[in-house]
Amino acid sequence: MSIHTAPHAASQARSVPCPKARPTAAATLARCRDLVEPALRTAVRELHPGPRRIASHAFGWCEADGTPRAGGAGKGVRQAFVVLGAEAAGAPADVAVPGAVAIELIHTFSLMHDDIMDGDGRRRHRESAWKAFGTGPALLAGDALFALGVRTLAGVGGATGGEAIGHLTSMMGELVHGQADDELFGTRPWTGENAVGLGEYRAMAERKTGALLGCAAALGPVLAGAPPQCTDALARAGRQFGLAFQAVDDVLGIWGEPAVTGKPAHSDLRRAKKTLPVLGAMAQDPALGTRLDRLLGTDGTSDSACVRRAADLVERAGGRAYALREARARVAAGRDHLRAVPLAGPSVDELVALSELLLNRQL
Amino acid sequence: MSIHTAPHAASQARSVPCPKARPTAAATLARCRDLVEPALRTAVRELHPGPRRIASHAFGWCEADGTPRAGGAGKGVRQAFVVLGAEAAGAPADVAVPGAVAIELIHTFSLMHDDIMDGDGRRRHRESAWKAFGTGPALLAGDALFALGVRTLAGVGGATGGEAIGHLTSMMGELVHGQADDELFGTRPWTGENAVGLGEYRAMAERKTGALLGCAAALGPVLAGAPPQCTDALARAGRQFGLAFQAVDDVLGIWGEPAVTGKPAHSDLRRAKKTLPVLGAMAQDPALGTRLDRLLGTDGTSDSACVRRAADLVERAGGRAYALREARARVAAGRDHLRAVPLAGPSVDELVALSELLLNRQL
Repeated sequence: MSIHTAPHAASQARSVPCPKARPTAAATLARCRDLVEPALRTAVRELHPGPRRIASHAFGWCEADGTPRAGGAGKGVRQAFVVLGAEAAGAPADVAVPGAVAIELIHTFSLMHDDIMDGDGRRRHRESAWKAFGTGPALLAGDALFALGVRTLAGVGGATGGEAIGHLTSMMGELVHGQADDELFGTRPWTGENAVGLGEYRAMAERKTGALLGCAAALGPVLAGAPPQCTDALARAGRQFGLAFQAVDDVLGIWGEPAVTGKPAHSDLRRAKKTLPVLGAMAQDPALGTRLDRLLGTDGTSDSACVRRAADLVERAGGRAYALREARARVAAGRDHLRAVPLAGPSVDELVALSELLLNRQL
Repeated sequence: MSIHTAPHAASQARSVPCPKARPTAAATLARCRDLVEPALRTAVRELHPGPRRIASHAFGWCEADGTPRAGGAGKGVRQAFVVLGAEAAGAPADVAVPGAVAIELIHTFSLMHDDIMDGDGRRRHRESAWKAFGTGPALLAGDALFALGVRTLAGVGGATGGEAIGHLTSMMGELVHGQADDELFGTRPWTGENAVGLGEYRAMAERKTGALLGCAAALGPVLAGAPPQCTDALARAGRQFGLAFQAVDDVLGIWGEPAVTGKPAHSDLRRAKKTLPVLGAMAQDPALGTRLDRLLGTDGTSDSACVRRAADLVERAGGRAYALREARARVAAGRDHLRAVPLAGPSVDELVALSELLLNRQL
């Protein structure tokens, strides 16, 4: 089969059973994107031209000046979880579309506002929204995406739509709570009673990252009208995969290649962030906190030599290995949730392939 | 009856029929606040401590340092519209509570984000949220209120809850669209083809201000399970009252007493805002635009003498009278909508009293 047949195969996948050979994660992502993106573009066209331009830039559909641009931004893992969740519940992929659109809109809203809060000028190798368009317009565009996401899912209506909205609004509460914790952790000390503990960190990560992927995985079966145990299993699996994603993200935030991540070297340490590798290392070496405090402080103004030295200390104390072990354990736990209920096989295989992608991305 | 019996009378009003004598707007507002505020406080307690503090400050329940504070912020007109709407549809006030809470949360979210976008350091005679707590925390607190508002209404569930969510999410889309237009208008010229027209201005004001009050008035009958023509009439009335509110706000934005409005004299002209009095005056005196352009420019950097002179010109060209005439016409149109359907009388009287309050506030 030549590569030129791939788009055809992808579009066929909506109406024919999934092939027996396990599809690659890339093929799954492409198939789900083909299904969801037209509806996402239709939804975004409803926006006021100002926020619409900013949203289109964030989705990778245009440059900041409005020039159309080939290729999207991001892998579209979240929308794929919604689609695969519906299929795993035995429904056609189409029923997942409003959920997938809502999840992509809410995810992009949260990135846009987080970048304002964190002062991050780069996102996916391009200028972040506030950097390209200004803080006020980016703030408003985020609000517009938030509102549009809820409205899109509200449009489903009926008991199914009500249940879906319930999942979405719970998730949004968690998302904001997690973000608030994350901001607060940055101001807390490296040592002493008020230092951030591993348990607190995990609770924060579950809210900030786990909840969104958990909701994405739950929306498919909810929209498919699946029984609660099916929805629960997928929601739990999604949360675990979200935590794996965050653990890998934390590793990349310290040791990721700047050319690949699009962020400065050791960027999380530069900002004195207490992420999983650091907290895991500190749990294994109680004296590490004092040394990191000396090297990094809490105001994110350390020089590159100090930051590099801190990264070495965290690695030598086993922080990197700790976070990667946790990521693998989360993926395994997520797969166990998927195996605990009867689900339509091929989509489960695709979910598993995606969870491998989460583990291996950019490392 | 001594003044000391008033709180008792207010709490009785939930279970006994409204008294025959038409209650004052102040009594109505107090009665609705007594009903809604406990549920609003319960909802806000769900938030993360960071956003919770900022929300409590915005609602006037505490100082920026957390010290409890007597008295609320704002009159609570929007929550009263939800309650009166339910009563006008013949339902007990209690059914309105989740809608009233949602409306207050979403309204406060929008003020919080608008103040960031506009750089407004004052709100209701106190520091605005971003001024007191910083831009990032205020942005996140706004998001938290937005999410909590949707979640509160989603908690109603069933077909009624679904319909209510539909109204809320449409309104939020309009709100953001109106705010985007308002921001855009500020950058447009005073004269020529690209100048802001009265029609565009009214469409913006209907989205930015009318939609929220229209939604507030609609949520009561929706939650009461009223027939569509009842909901429609109240929604239309609310929109008209919202437009009246905005017209009066525009007058206060130029001629309001700084001691009363808490804003600098002629504040909207200082920021070169094209509001209703200005556009109304320009419609009557086509040469005015050029003179305002010279005095005010579009960057909001004019000195006080120029701004005062511009205010005089707008007043002499009839702009103030134009806006007040429009406000009265909107209130009259709103009342006509209320009279067009059979509604429970006492609550309609209270709605009319509130519409008078909108007209006469702070003038």
